[in-house]
Amino acid sequence: MFGGQFLAQGLVAAQLTVTDDRDVNSLHAYFLRPGDVNLPTTWQVERVRDGRGFSSRSVVAQQAGKDLFRMALSFQVPRPGAEFSSRAMPDVPSAEKVTSTYNEFTESTRASGDGQWHGSVRPMDIRYINPPSAPAGEPILEPQLMWMRIKESLEDEPRIHDAALAYLSDASLIDHVALPHGRRWEEPGFDGTSLDHAMWFHRHVRADEWVLFDQKAEATASERGLATGRFFTEDGELIATCAQEGLMRWEED
Amino acid sequence: MFGGQFLAQGLVAAQLTVTDDRDVNSLHAYFLRPGDVNLPTTWQVERVRDGRGFSSRSVVAQQAGKDLFRMALSFQVPRPGAEFSSRAMPDVPSAEKVTSTYNEFTESTRASGDGQWHGSVRPMDIRYINPPSAPAGEPILEPQLMWMRIKESLEDEPRIHDAALAYLSDASLIDHVALPHGRRWEEPGFDGTSLDHAMWFHRHVRADEWVLFDQKAEATASERGLATGRFFTEDGELIATCAQEGLMRWEED
Repeated sequence: MFGGQFLAQGLVAAQLTVTDDRDVNSLHAYFLRPGDVNLPTTWQVERVRDGRGFSSRSVVAQQAGKDLFRMALSFQVPRPGAEFSSRAMPDVPSAEKVTSTYNEFTESTRASGDGQWHGSVRPMDIRYINPPSAPAGEPILEPQLMWMRIKESLEDEPRIHDAALAYLSDASLIDHVALPHGRRWEEPGFDGTSLDHAMWFHRHVRADEWVLFDQKAEATASERGLATGRFFTEDGELIATCAQEGLMRWEED
Repeated sequence: MFGGQFLAQGLVAAQLTVTDDRDVNSLHAYFLRPGDVNLPTTWQVERVRDGRGFSSRSVVAQQAGKDLFRMALSFQVPRPGAEFSSRAMPDVPSAEKVTSTYNEFTESTRASGDGQWHGSVRPMDIRYINPPSAPAGEPILEPQLMWMRIKESLEDEPRIHDAALAYLSDASLIDHVALPHGRRWEEPGFDGTSLDHAMWFHRHVRADEWVLFDQKAEATASERGLATGRFFTEDGELIATCAQEGLMRWEED
């Protein structure tokens, strides 16, 4: 099961227990076991706390009585507040001008291996602005930039868009921890999986309109890698900050 | 109660339930209610999962039956693995050459208000390399750099040092979200509190020897601010990456 599906479904499950005067402001998740798409998943939400300004929730997803996924979330009554971002949106071509998709990139990597596409068809449109042009084996250190959106129009309900953004945030983020080592997440012999995910929502936008995801590898050691990503609107406003750690190992050359 | 105490005690509580072949690799916490130092705190640890390479734990701290703090943690059997860091340690004077302490800075800010020191004596030695020289009201955008260590020698047990590093990580991090707005966390009329905390351990070091904490405000909006910090050894090795969101508001001028 795709990690973004856990994030989005878990967020929706928590939203259903929170009064609609408050929006998600952060979430922290651990991926505990791979899910089986052929089994039903049960979702349990614990109402941890409802305060005047914030609500706290804890969510567990299970299959066959075993925990697959746990997430803690915080919701806030939105407030006007001083706005700041340490990062400007990178200067990039508009989404319409970018034709390479993320799937093309991952498929071209995989094509050098067993040639199989192991993923499922996903409801995302991802335009890869700067797919690595360096040959495999060469370290890639610059941030990786993608325009993303949900393909189909979503209903006009802000909470759905928060969940959809969480869905998008897991599409490619962890893959980047391989790049500084000249590796590709999809290459034969590379073994990787997401361990956790954190996301802070600075504002709330539509996820069926283009958002820029500015992603980079932060650090790797002990077969783990940490990546961070920032979402921006087309107008250059910072939407959300994400961080994810993944397991990564590969067969030695 | 100091947030770093929750982080450190929660980590120790979780460590006690994990076999000693594995070290903490990440933690994700929410601060739910302020604690009362005069009341006993009970700690409950849930053994979420023990796998071959990782263990997952969930920790709750309560006073008088109410949740103060919740944290999820992951432990890993250490592995050799390819190492990378996107950040070099900033070029800074050695800790011995830095004489200004973080307490002096926060006390000088507070002195313009009620002049009271509301904190408690903390077992930390924090040398503030670049305390803001700009007058209050002027935005401060550069990373804030501090040498930190636990004052007393700690026993020669690596887990204690991981917990002590978590303790240090909460000493000053969130204060930085005020700086881009020309505010100071300690100034009269400023109201701030930590909401959450995330920490990824890339390696494990002694916390009674100097570590550099390189901290910055990432973004603020809706009366919340996100800050990130990176710990380095004196030799320039990246130790851990942290992120924390806090509530921040102030009386309008």
